[in-house]
Amino acid sequence: MKNILDRNQNKANEVRNLLASRKVLMVNIISSPGAGKTTLLERTCEALASKFRIGVIEGDVTTDRDAQRLKKYNIPIVVINTEGGCHLDSHSISKVLDSFDLDNLDVLFVENVGNLICPSQFDLGETFKLAVVSTAEGDDKPDKYPMLFREAKAVLLNKIDLIQYTNFNHENFTRDLKKINGKILQFDVSCTRGDGLEEWFKWITDQISHLTSEPEAYF
Amino acid sequence: MKNILDRNQNKANEVRNLLASRKVLMVNIISSPGAGKTTLLERTCEALASKFRIGVIEGDVTTDRDAQRLKKYNIPIVVINTEGGCHLDSHSISKVLDSFDLDNLDVLFVENVGNLICPSQFDLGETFKLAVVSTAEGDDKPDKYPMLFREAKAVLLNKIDLIQYTNFNHENFTRDLKKINGKILQFDVSCTRGDGLEEWFKWITDQISHLTSEPEAYF
Repeated sequence: MKNILDRNQNKANEVRNLLASRKVLMVNIISSPGAGKTTLLERTCEALASKFRIGVIEGDVTTDRDAQRLKKYNIPIVVINTEGGCHLDSHSISKVLDSFDLDNLDVLFVENVGNLICPSQFDLGETFKLAVVSTAEGDDKPDKYPMLFREAKAVLLNKIDLIQYTNFNHENFTRDLKKINGKILQFDVSCTRGDGLEEWFKWITDQISHLTSEPEAYF
Repeated sequence: MKNILDRNQNKANEVRNLLASRKVLMVNIISSPGAGKTTLLERTCEALASKFRIGVIEGDVTTDRDAQRLKKYNIPIVVINTEGGCHLDSHSISKVLDSFDLDNLDVLFVENVGNLICPSQFDLGETFKLAVVSTAEGDDKPDKYPMLFREAKAVLLNKIDLIQYTNFNHENFTRDLKKINGKILQFDVSCTRGDGLEEWFKWITDQISHLTSEPEAYF
């Protein structure tokens, strides 16, 4: 296992250097199945595809259903089917980078395989990891699956519109999260209803603009 | 990987033979994080702990939070912390079976680590696998994560009380599910509100009674 992780790390460093040299921001999006990663990408493409050159890598166990949902935005998308595998690794990312014109890309979103555990152990060469959690999953997720939250730069607490129908305790969630990672940013959003998304757009715009040579504000 | 799975299978066969000789039903419960496995066990203990001798193995990445929730039912519970591992295997199950008095047990529920992918590849020696999915996760889960649904004997579609607030298409879910596994049973339930649970109690009662020497109807 150590050997596998070491080899993954070496390739991740290569990917990170390559993307930095081309000024491409890479976001590794990790969540449980059905937390809302693809819907987040739909909303983000709608808001930002006219401002930035967006690419997407879709990690999926078998199908290309998520990629189909993003086709309408007319952006470069590559699907990696893991054939049963539970996470993406840096080698699979490295292989598909050739399919993108990196000189004409500002940001590359990687939708990892739906899994809170294994993907957090594999550095893909991303600029940062983004965690997505749904209120329907319960407020105990940071404490129960700390690895991801320790690593992520930000967490989107999605399906905030459902919170009133669940026993999700927002205070406990935030308290546990901050205990694990005092620096992590938290955005409360509903990717279907739109709550809180402007703040996310503004933040991700800042992240992209900070990296690209031609900063351009979203607002 | 093949080697690991072969060794796991041999030990799983041992576990299965041991449990069969003691007439203990073992249910391997698999779902995404936060689909409702522990709440299902709470409701099931409340309904059946006076009828059957229930034991629980709690698989968790780090904490014993789920086990704490079940303490009040005064049943034997063993926690397996995988220390970051993404699934239980038959060796970990075999090791903790000694902690149970198998001659005084009718059913052993194993709450696997919250993960739709890896746990479905590791036979634990269970009598059958039970899948739990929440309506909040979306109707595309059977198609996107077919391995579990191919293997499971039954699926509990949980949080049916939330379906009205989501875009979950019940017809599509059932159609995809049956395409993957024509024999799988589907129970629509809400483990918090109680919808559909009587049917589940009746069915699991039948499964336990069928195995134990002294069949006893739930109703």
